[in-house]
Amino acid sequence: MQHMWLSLLSGLCLNLVFLCSAEEGLEFPNFDGKDRVMDINERNYKKALKRYDLLCLFYHEPLPANKGLQKRFQMTELVLELTAQVLENKDIGFGMVDSQKDVKVAKKLGLEEVGSLYVFKDDRVIEFDGELSADTLVEFLLDVLEDPVEMINNAMEVRAFERMEEDIRLIGYFKGEDSCYTFRDPGSEASERFQPYIKFFATFDKSVAKHLSLKMNEVNFYEPFMEEPAIVPGRPLSEIDIVEYVTQHRRATLRKLRAENMFETWEDDMDGIHIVAFAEEEDPDGYEFLEILKDVARDNTNNPELSIVWIDPDDFPLLTTYWEKTFKLDLFRPQIGVVNVTDADSVWLDMSNDEDLPTAEELEDWIEDVLSGRVNTEDDDESADEPENPDSYITEDSDEIHDLDEGDNDDNYN
Amino acid sequence: MQHMWLSLLSGLCLNLVFLCSAEEGLEFPNFDGKDRVMDINERNYKKALKRYDLLCLFYHEPLPANKGLQKRFQMTELVLELTAQVLENKDIGFGMVDSQKDVKVAKKLGLEEVGSLYVFKDDRVIEFDGELSADTLVEFLLDVLEDPVEMINNAMEVRAFERMEEDIRLIGYFKGEDSCYTFRDPGSEASERFQPYIKFFATFDKSVAKHLSLKMNEVNFYEPFMEEPAIVPGRPLSEIDIVEYVTQHRRATLRKLRAENMFETWEDDMDGIHIVAFAEEEDPDGYEFLEILKDVARDNTNNPELSIVWIDPDDFPLLTTYWEKTFKLDLFRPQIGVVNVTDADSVWLDMSNDEDLPTAEELEDWIEDVLSGRVNTEDDDESADEPENPDSYITEDSDEIHDLDEGDNDDNYN
Repeated sequence: MQHMWLSLLSGLCLNLVFLCSAEEGLEFPNFDGKDRVMDINERNYKKALKRYDLLCLFYHEPLPANKGLQKRFQMTELVLELTAQVLENKDIGFGMVDSQKDVKVAKKLGLEEVGSLYVFKDDRVIEFDGELSADTLVEFLLDVLEDPVEMINNAMEVRAFERMEEDIRLIGYFKGEDSCYTFRDPGSEASERFQPYIKFFATFDKSVAKHLSLKMNEVNFYEPFMEEPAIVPGRPLSEIDIVEYVTQHRRATLRKLRAENMFETWEDDMDGIHIVAFAEEEDPDGYEFLEILKDVARDNTNNPELSIVWIDPDDFPLLTTYWEKTFKLDLFRPQIGVVNVTDADSVWLDMSNDEDLPTAEELEDWIEDVLSGRVNTEDDDESADEPENPDSYITEDSDEIHDLDEGDNDDNYN
Repeated sequence: MQHMWLSLLSGLCLNLVFLCSAEEGLEFPNFDGKDRVMDINERNYKKALKRYDLLCLFYHEPLPANKGLQKRFQMTELVLELTAQVLENKDIGFGMVDSQKDVKVAKKLGLEEVGSLYVFKDDRVIEFDGELSADTLVEFLLDVLEDPVEMINNAMEVRAFERMEEDIRLIGYFKGEDSCYTFRDPGSEASERFQPYIKFFATFDKSVAKHLSLKMNEVNFYEPFMEEPAIVPGRPLSEIDIVEYVTQHRRATLRKLRAENMFETWEDDMDGIHIVAFAEEEDPDGYEFLEILKDVARDNTNNPELSIVWIDPDDFPLLTTYWEKTFKLDLFRPQIGVVNVTDADSVWLDMSNDEDLPTAEELEDWIEDVLSGRVNTEDDDESADEPENPDSYITEDSDEIHDLDEGDNDDNYN
């Protein structure tokens, strides 16, 4: 695809090259123009699979006729080229599969979602359905290269493990290398099946196990933000036991949106909607609101109908003003609302006139109203025709305010 | 500068547009081709200063003759254009100042460092000397727009405050809005002087003050990673007192490299070198090493000659393999070494054959050797000529190993 590059060569990575010439040690890579991404077809795909430790295939629509879309397409290729260049020494192959020209190859490889990137590692396929930027992609691939099971050997590492409350984590206690085969046996272990989205840990250390209340051959499952883990039933566990358990419990009551799988998370909506909470963890207000949210999630962890998506605006600077515009929100403050994923229609809990944030109980009442349908994104559309209606939610179609719960909790939110 | 764009229009932001068409709510902006960045000159700079809440001026070298450098220059402009587009509703102006054509304007505005971005806010100028990517720049500017002093009102917000151990923070206890004038008085307060690099907080709450051991009108200064704050001497404090104190204590014993001011940090070397520690906080090993580093920093907080730069590779995916190559390191593991900033020559403590990380005492001994010059980046260059020398550091010029301290601590590092 050399011909596509001619107008875009060099300088994708955007840095102050002008500046840091006097000092060395922080040089961002610039695309060197060398063509590293393969055009995958029926003749070369098997060879490519064999040749690399990892093979990344971007499954894409045919090159569009529209000039603007073509540029966009070229930028995507440029991201892949830069990623390939940065990871040149890591034995990773990169290729493009055209959903029209290469339909047979795609079928053989099991590629399904156009626009996704598929990573082949040994006998597994990992789908990357996140932000396609070089930053995110490089970090993702470096994670895939790491050992899928991390050892926890001492008290300090336990502390590190306990701090990872945003992640789905499993940890098992085993006698030694041999007996944790379901975690480690290459080619068949549960850990590799979910890498890098779900983190697997193991310990052989008695005091670590004691601290975590783990019995021999037991595996604990930590849902994000929960204080207590669940014990994966069965002992010893087979790979299938673990895979089934994780698959069933994967959608957390409170889950953080991450660049590496943001589109996958967004597609996993609950009947067409998401309950979305914006909170900057670095901000005192945001932190406080997040702690309330965690309380609510802990209280409702057994409700399969509830899954709140927490977005930290700091993680998505380029989307912040888009969200503010789309949802008519001020994201310098914490917010919670319901978003319809088909049209981005939304309704938000009014916390604007209040010095205090809602309590966990008040938030639970509101969430109950969302789940029961009393609060929804359609009602406010009607209310635009009924301007006489006094309410206590801000909606993105009007600056009017909706009732929280037919009067129940008005005092707390006005 | 419309003409420069013609070949680069649309599609800077790199995302899976192909994919997320079915669902809405996560749409990354694409550059719309509209020209928003001004060409600043003697005729328009005063008007521009008056017109916007914030004015961002990129001070740059003249357009280079070299084609490759020209593309790079255009990408920089594109970053500014996309940033301007994303922040369109925030009343921020963007402009370019040519260090040759606009030499008079630059002098009048006090622009000094070519390649830096200067942000004009009221009567202040803030220099941005970080990674010039749209992500980093948007986040930085949103931070500049926030209130420079955050209030801490309750126990939960104190917890949020206490968690920010990576940041330089000041917090003052005041009777009310009026008496914290040195923090708040617009146009003259210390907080704005350092925004957004140094965080300022205030509380009017007695129990918060008690928890933080703050007396009325007292201001505490928190050095990153230290357990106890220092009291800024004087009560009540003038703006100058605070500015002088912060300026004097700004360089922390352990400081984290951040995208927003990475080049500034790197330029602030200690006699041409940096002690650099790589540690992934999310990784158990990395976390453990970081805790040891913090202990060392706490023990040596009064040594003005010591400032360790901590780099979390997760924050800089595009630089990870560059560092691995330049420094001959495996960054899946924690590392510590000395880097000469003029040529990126370096020498690293060998922790590769050891199951255990060094203790704080061992690390302190090594740091003493660095500060005394016994460990330095030049010795290993000579050692290439003396291959008979057995040693215990890995250097980037050879795979040989250097003595830690003429035998003192060999056992711990081999």
